[in-house]
Amino acid sequence: MGIRLGPNRYGKAESRVVRIVRDSPRHEIRDLTVSSALRGNFTAAHTEGDQSHVLPTDTQKNTAFAFAKKHGVASPEDYALALGRRLVEATPEATGAEITVLEHAWDRIPVDGAGHDHAFVRRGGEVRTVLVDVERDGTRVTSGVQDLVLLKSTGSEFKGFLRDDYTTLEETDDRILATSLRATWRHARADGVDWNASYAAVRALLLATFATTYSRALQETLYAMGRAVLEAHEDIAEISFVAPNKHHFLVDLEPFGLENPGEVFIAADRPYGLIEATVTREEESTWP
Amino acid sequence: MGIRLGPNRYGKAESRVVRIVRDSPRHEIRDLTVSSALRGNFTAAHTEGDQSHVLPTDTQKNTAFAFAKKHGVASPEDYALALGRRLVEATPEATGAEITVLEHAWDRIPVDGAGHDHAFVRRGGEVRTVLVDVERDGTRVTSGVQDLVLLKSTGSEFKGFLRDDYTTLEETDDRILATSLRATWRHARADGVDWNASYAAVRALLLATFATTYSRALQETLYAMGRAVLEAHEDIAEISFVAPNKHHFLVDLEPFGLENPGEVFIAADRPYGLIEATVTREEESTWP
Amino acid sequence: MGIRLGPNRYGKAESRVVRIVRDSPRHEIRDLTVSSALRGNFTAAHTEGDQSHVLPTDTQKNTAFAFAKKHGVASPEDYALALGRRLVEATPEATGAEITVLEHAWDRIPVDGAGHDHAFVRRGGEVRTVLVDVERDGTRVTSGVQDLVLLKSTGSEFKGFLRDDYTTLEETDDRILATSLRATWRHARADGVDWNASYAAVRALLLATFATTYSRALQETLYAMGRAVLEAHEDIAEISFVAPNKHHFLVDLEPFGLENPGEVFIAADRPYGLIEATVTREEESTWP
Amino acid sequence: MGIRLGPNRYGKAESRVVRIVRDSPRHEIRDLTVSSALRGNFTAAHTEGDQSHVLPTDTQKNTAFAFAKKHGVASPEDYALALGRRLVEATPEATGAEITVLEHAWDRIPVDGAGHDHAFVRRGGEVRTVLVDVERDGTRVTSGVQDLVLLKSTGSEFKGFLRDDYTTLEETDDRILATSLRATWRHARADGVDWNASYAAVRALLLATFATTYSRALQETLYAMGRAVLEAHEDIAEISFVAPNKHHFLVDLEPFGLENPGEVFIAADRPYGLIEATVTREEESTWP
Repeated sequence: MGIRLGPNRYGKAESRVVRIVRDSPRHEIRDLTVSSALRGNFTAAHTEGDQSHVLPTDTQKNTAFAFAKKHGVASPEDYALALGRRLVEATPEATGAEITVLEHAWDRIPVDGAGHDHAFVRRGGEVRTVLVDVERDGTRVTSGVQDLVLLKSTGSEFKGFLRDDYTTLEETDDRILATSLRATWRHARADGVDWNASYAAVRALLLATFATTYSRALQETLYAMGRAVLEAHEDIAEISFVAPNKHHFLVDLEPFGLENPGEVFIAADRPYGLIEATVTREEESTWP
Repeated sequence: MGIRLGPNRYGKAESRVVRIVRDSPRHEIRDLTVSSALRGNFTAAHTEGDQSHVLPTDTQKNTAFAFAKKHGVASPEDYALALGRRLVEATPEATGAEITVLEHAWDRIPVDGAGHDHAFVRRGGEVRTVLVDVERDGTRVTSGVQDLVLLKSTGSEFKGFLRDDYTTLEETDDRILATSLRATWRHARADGVDWNASYAAVRALLLATFATTYSRALQETLYAMGRAVLEAHEDIAEISFVAPNKHHFLVDLEPFGLENPGEVFIAADRPYGLIEATVTREEESTWP
Repeated sequence: MGIRLGPNRYGKAESRVVRIVRDSPRHEIRDLTVSSALRGNFTAAHTEGDQSHVLPTDTQKNTAFAFAKKHGVASPEDYALALGRRLVEATPEATGAEITVLEHAWDRIPVDGAGHDHAFVRRGGEVRTVLVDVERDGTRVTSGVQDLVLLKSTGSEFKGFLRDDYTTLEETDDRILATSLRATWRHARADGVDWNASYAAVRALLLATFATTYSRALQETLYAMGRAVLEAHEDIAEISFVAPNKHHFLVDLEPFGLENPGEVFIAADRPYGLIEATVTREEESTWP
Repeated sequence: MGIRLGPNRYGKAESRVVRIVRDSPRHEIRDLTVSSALRGNFTAAHTEGDQSHVLPTDTQKNTAFAFAKKHGVASPEDYALALGRRLVEATPEATGAEITVLEHAWDRIPVDGAGHDHAFVRRGGEVRTVLVDVERDGTRVTSGVQDLVLLKSTGSEFKGFLRDDYTTLEETDDRILATSLRATWRHARADGVDWNASYAAVRALLLATFATTYSRALQETLYAMGRAVLEAHEDIAEISFVAPNKHHFLVDLEPFGLENPGEVFIAADRPYGLIEATVTREEESTWP
């Protein structure tokens, strides 16, 4: 029974690429964490130590920095597409490249009511994400957001659930619902999209739907958010969520002679619920 | 030569206290990480295992949650003062209590142009901090901010420095200056202060001074920031900074036939410069 | 074009289960981080907010703790199998459960040359992992290790690689090779295995193969490690690696009049190479 | 009321210095994280942007790497002393330097029953620490350990404590006691000490005392550990502890018809108790 190489890939992870646009006194900043991975026929590197088909990860890193200048970063999607296409082109044995970009947002520092030309404060909060998969005959662009922490202080219940011998949870009509959302949406097209406008619109819609949907479970909320995005954006093929249920437990203040009608909570770290769901279109094939 | 107990203290660290104000349909949220530490005559607990003077850390935690209801959280300073005074009062052998509060900010989720009543998104970015030190005959309040990440894409030089046999650094007329600031400012008074207004004003002044001061070193920038705060706020006695110099190195693109006039940088993780400085008033005694 | 629910699952993540065996004065400790996820027909929970088929994540957590007592933790594999089977049994609409267990190792504290009966010190270093996937008609057990940090101070080269316009890396005959290994190996059988002995043997073989194989690339080293495991363990169907190449760069000491023949290195954080590879058997189907 | 510069210092933090000793085929490895900070008269750098007295943090970093070769790393204490003395010597306006070194331990990979010559596995667990403070007329060496995670599964009680209106904690005769210890001990002398032997002896004594002391509170355990070290090592002037009380809560299994006599616990993350204590000698002055 022979032994052989199975799936494999290699690349350079987490290059911290900062691009300042200084064509005018009013600078722009794009702050990215860039990773690339090549896949293809790299068997000889594994079985014989032959690197002749292997474009070094150091070169992949160099290309990431060089393309921040040569191609620019109009959007992380656009930049990732250019980088992925270049790496596949430069590596004859590669069948595909996966480029991941995280974008860390900055705001202009306000001075006398206006944003400063070249001084910035890190916005914090969520991170914009891009995953581009380039093959020789096709390309997939998946935009996303992670670390988007959302909370509703009312308008959330959880009841009518299945019970067994290990169930002690009480039903609730009113709880805090909170999550640190990771959402990724795959575009039907890789070109001709205004990536920045699309990102802003999807993010706003996710937030507004979370806010305005009464929740009978985090699952229902996620599905509503996904449906809203697919209904409003016909060029988005599907959307996936990874959503920890960040539990906020009502603190029992009765021993201290105090009532606690939904006012004081302890935010727990672990364990946490973890909900994963994809919302897709009828004809779409989804997760492999 | 005898052996004895030296300085000691004990408490409960990092209670995650979330307070929802729901007196009206338009909820408010205060999201705090609360720590307390008692000091005093607790020698018997160490040398004889006698706990009779020790208010358990579990009780300190209970008090933190109960006071979020009983006293409320108009500001983290105000809440910390009430909690510290209570813990000292409840513990006859305590000579002092140190309360630390981190406040994590939330924004209302925008829906149709207005902030939602009970749905929030974590703001991210910097954390507001409070350290209150309560003694039986006096109280010190130190407000602050941490994880405030600032960057200037120009207007920063570093040259004319001391050189020795191990110096290889080249002088620069134009570099990126970036830091993740921790600033703490001690108030001259513990009462009668509008803590929230004071925090907002100091934060804005720190940002604006960072933005508008030409920098010949991070040290000079910090001193200018501190001086601006003390000049504008006569009730602030002194201000201290811990500021990592988050290096952004210009990437050499010449091997690829590209110029790089301050446009593409690699953001480095480690090592980093670390600058610490206090700005104080003439008559102030400072760090012990 | 209709919208529908795609793949989904839900569970409780990272329950910190500590089991003390105290049947005799010589205690044993098993320290686990346990996660579970159920998949199946939970569409109504998403589309209608109907929880009647949903076993709460809180119940999953309760079961994890209860089974640490009821079933015990002879090995993390054994425990995970019992937990997974229970959760599928308790949830009629579930088609499968995935249980992930991390085991954190402890050593007995040495006292007078012998290990203490009930005092332990955390071993640190690598974490033993188990992923059990239970379906109604079959079960897969995948054992593993993560955070296994390995380093060779010689016996590693990297040369003969593909070059393009962005390649500046120099070839090297002698470098430090270091990685923080994550390895996971799937067993051909789910029962009748001495899991603890199997784990110890695979771990030892991975280490020894890393140590004794001359490396012409991290890829070659990983393949050799995988092949060694499959050759020695016929009940292991395949093994996968995720291996960051933790770069150690030789420091240029020439400006200081010092030679540096492979003696002083800077360990870099980011970016890092990232190699992923599976070694499998001829007839095995692998990654989906 | 004038404004002036208060206490200040600057340096380079967290240089990752890896030193391979390869004088023979049996290599040695020392893996360090090195930080330095200079203090003195650097007022002009702050108030006028004048760097002429400032040895750049980049130079401090260079010196840290160069000294790993030039001076070597017989022990982290020895290396830190050499580095600190050099930095003070090189900086006329410096009055003192503080050097912090963390040492990350590696074990030889076992092959056929013996440790390999040049292949290593990271030991994990605790980190050895050194803080050296060099002034022009004196030097202090403080050795230490951090992230030393200890646990006793019995032999620990907590009762007889002070109660108030917010006390709900029940007394216990038998609990898990666990901590992630940070201990630092100051030596009376800076020279003529076998630092490696001293470290090994103190570490072993801390562990054994933790194991064999019945605990009526974490405070009592820490004091016993400190006393044991000072009694056995007359050249150690004082020892300080920072010890989070890592709570392990007994899980209530009664709803599931199971007893739980100290067998199944949930390890909690936050909040945690936090105990700080110094054990010193009668004549010692301690914390400022």
